[in-house]
Amino acid sequence: MAIADAVEELATRFGPRLSRAVSDRALHGASETHFADAPPDAVAYPESTAEVADILRVCAQHGCPVIGWGTGTSLEGHALAIRGGVTVDFARMDKVLEVRAEDMLAVVQPGVTREALNTELRATGLFFPVDPGANASLGGMAATRASGTTAVRYGTMRDNVRALEVVLADGQVVRTGTAAPKSSAGYDLTALFVGSEGTLGLITELTLKLCGQPEAVSAAVCAFPAMGPAVEAVIATIQSGIPMARIEFVDAASVRAFNRASDGAMTEAPHLLVEFHGSEAAVAEQAARFGEVVAELGGADFRWAARPEDRSALWKMRHNAFYACKAMHPDRPAIVTDVCVPISRLAQAVEETVAEIDASGIPGPIVGHVGDGNFHAMLMPRPDDAAEAATAKRLASAMAERALRLGGTVSGEHGIGMGKTGYMEAEHGPGWAVMGTLKRALDPAGILNPGKLVPGN
Amino acid sequence: MAIADAVEELATRFGPRLSRAVSDRALHGASETHFADAPPDAVAYPESTAEVADILRVCAQHGCPVIGWGTGTSLEGHALAIRGGVTVDFARMDKVLEVRAEDMLAVVQPGVTREALNTELRATGLFFPVDPGANASLGGMAATRASGTTAVRYGTMRDNVRALEVVLADGQVVRTGTAAPKSSAGYDLTALFVGSEGTLGLITELTLKLCGQPEAVSAAVCAFPAMGPAVEAVIATIQSGIPMARIEFVDAASVRAFNRASDGAMTEAPHLLVEFHGSEAAVAEQAARFGEVVAELGGADFRWAARPEDRSALWKMRHNAFYACKAMHPDRPAIVTDVCVPISRLAQAVEETVAEIDASGIPGPIVGHVGDGNFHAMLMPRPDDAAEAATAKRLASAMAERALRLGGTVSGEHGIGMGKTGYMEAEHGPGWAVMGTLKRALDPAGILNPGKLVPGN
Repeated sequence: MAIADAVEELATRFGPRLSRAVSDRALHGASETHFADAPPDAVAYPESTAEVADILRVCAQHGCPVIGWGTGTSLEGHALAIRGGVTVDFARMDKVLEVRAEDMLAVVQPGVTREALNTELRATGLFFPVDPGANASLGGMAATRASGTTAVRYGTMRDNVRALEVVLADGQVVRTGTAAPKSSAGYDLTALFVGSEGTLGLITELTLKLCGQPEAVSAAVCAFPAMGPAVEAVIATIQSGIPMARIEFVDAASVRAFNRASDGAMTEAPHLLVEFHGSEAAVAEQAARFGEVVAELGGADFRWAARPEDRSALWKMRHNAFYACKAMHPDRPAIVTDVCVPISRLAQAVEETVAEIDASGIPGPIVGHVGDGNFHAMLMPRPDDAAEAATAKRLASAMAERALRLGGTVSGEHGIGMGKTGYMEAEHGPGWAVMGTLKRALDPAGILNPGKLVPGN
Repeated sequence: MAIADAVEELATRFGPRLSRAVSDRALHGASETHFADAPPDAVAYPESTAEVADILRVCAQHGCPVIGWGTGTSLEGHALAIRGGVTVDFARMDKVLEVRAEDMLAVVQPGVTREALNTELRATGLFFPVDPGANASLGGMAATRASGTTAVRYGTMRDNVRALEVVLADGQVVRTGTAAPKSSAGYDLTALFVGSEGTLGLITELTLKLCGQPEAVSAAVCAFPAMGPAVEAVIATIQSGIPMARIEFVDAASVRAFNRASDGAMTEAPHLLVEFHGSEAAVAEQAARFGEVVAELGGADFRWAARPEDRSALWKMRHNAFYACKAMHPDRPAIVTDVCVPISRLAQAVEETVAEIDASGIPGPIVGHVGDGNFHAMLMPRPDDAAEAATAKRLASAMAERALRLGGTVSGEHGIGMGKTGYMEAEHGPGWAVMGTLKRALDPAGILNPGKLVPGN
């Protein structure tokens, strides 16, 4: 059998670094959310690009599926081995290869996590700004075009990957981009691989853009009487040109979960969480202007987190929203939605979503990177309740369809994975077939993360 | 004959909007720089996406080359019809279709020029920031991934195109991207078409990101005793985190050309031209900090352009550098180079280039978007002097090869066109073949801008 032959050959080459243990396969066949488990036949732990190329050559020869694996924090089941095969776990490719402080670049292996990189950068005065919350691997973040709380200021992985090394389906190693700040030399292959979810190649090295640590940072939380004015405050802030580093919305249900999870005492009302980066003077000016906007819209309970430890606590709380909400209903499956709409449609999108969730009776706390028009509802139907499961599914579909109707996208940052394939044609029209054409051109045998992202894959 | 048949069929459909006039063909077969003329067999002037799709369907049927045309300001001969065929001139698709002020987006046809768009936006408080100098069409700017003086702050066309409508080689119309600020929904087709130089499709509509007009703008010029300290000042400014909106280098020879062209009296020494955007307070702070950096490095003759008309004059002078330099030697061909290197290598790259040009005796004024590591030498060998022509070619090659050696790119912003194909393999390695694979997948008959950008095209 094709897969068995590939695994056998890889076992000979990789020895104990090709695992067929049930526990290892189970770990790499599970996801953080509601998708059915789908373990691979084996898990490989390469230590170099050459070894990744070896894996792909062997798997190409046998037509064996190959799935990349970072830290397993995907919320859309990207790495589920739905057709079996070999999962390539980048845990042993976790070195920061070079920090080029003058060029504000870091060259890293794909298994480096964003926290590990930022720890390594601490003494340089630089940091890597993309922050999806989870301590994801940078390879995984690039593969899913991740973003998170800071994208409103620093952009997503689309904007922060300068260059890549990628192993293609046939084992060929390709370098995309250069260390220069910009280029007009041909197709933007870097952008093509970022967000390709392991279907076009495996990323084995990343050159990432770094930012200078801001001279001053200031964060605040602010309660609102209702969700509407909070979203209006976001729109007003953006339009007044105040350069926020973060602007996050959390609803009352999320605050309740935070309070429970971290023994907090926030008012159980909708909140905005904001952060400003810049010089001392600039941050003070931005904060003052934001305060004016908020006051006009009925924001109250304004609290500044000036000390670094208070800010850390604030963002840790926000980053743990998924786990805090899950802890409210530990026995329930979690369906995490991820729509993104034009800013002008944000209030409408959130309001209609809240009304539908409220009417359903299913818990569905909402958090959002609202500066980007991106928000998530975490739907938690009762376990083993087919009717509630169907309702949750209907709510998620309604959110995705609404996002498309309002000119947005079915995925702001979590990607397609197992969860969103059904919306690709509606979002992209004939563009989805174009993606399939590109996929077949680069991976004619369809061994890279098969069954995901493109039509008929 | 294939081309003749296609032209005949198009003439029937388009009437006078399919021109076979010698003058029209000559105009569309010439370039701004030293490349040999290559007129198309006909020039089409479509008025809608449907008409562009018609043209492509007819040309696909007959295997007739199709070349896009904006304003003809390419410096690399992108639009030369080297295999004949039909040039599609977007002059009649020049409407701003929608300005979505709340979403800070504009939807435009490809023939809209950047100045026309900014004129239309004047009352909105918004502007489109990418500024390559020439009043290029936005479709052409997207197709060549243009940038210019403001990229250091606002990014290139890669960063400022939100969504596209593109007609593929077979006449199919595809929409890429959405109006949402970000997306993780599949391959980044927008980024693939931006910079594809008309080889993958013709852009028929663009959704562009707009910026708020800054509350305050401040510009300055500053002379330096030599090129070295000027470049060092750029690096120091970047590393100190001062957010410049523009930072441009011009050498003494360029200043001489400016003075001659616009009756100016600038000191004939290397200069930096800078601009700051922000709130009144932020701009004042940035300008003060820049002043300190410059003073440390021997900058002198510091002059602020506070009044809008002074700033306009300053940037008009910079934008006309090409024509001012050309006017110094009107009878000479101009070879405009366009390398971009990592910031840490900028001083070395510029110094070595200047030394080689000086030694050659050929005029070669240098200007650069040095905040991006991008600079241009305009080489002007004597006309009909084979030895000087060869020397100029050697100088240009040496610049490109040096850029690659220093980890940079052979094109920062002008693109590949006719001039840089020979460096593609050296820059991209096997990635160049990948570009060819993508091209063949989307345009198997090779009718879109044939002979350009990809191998064996």
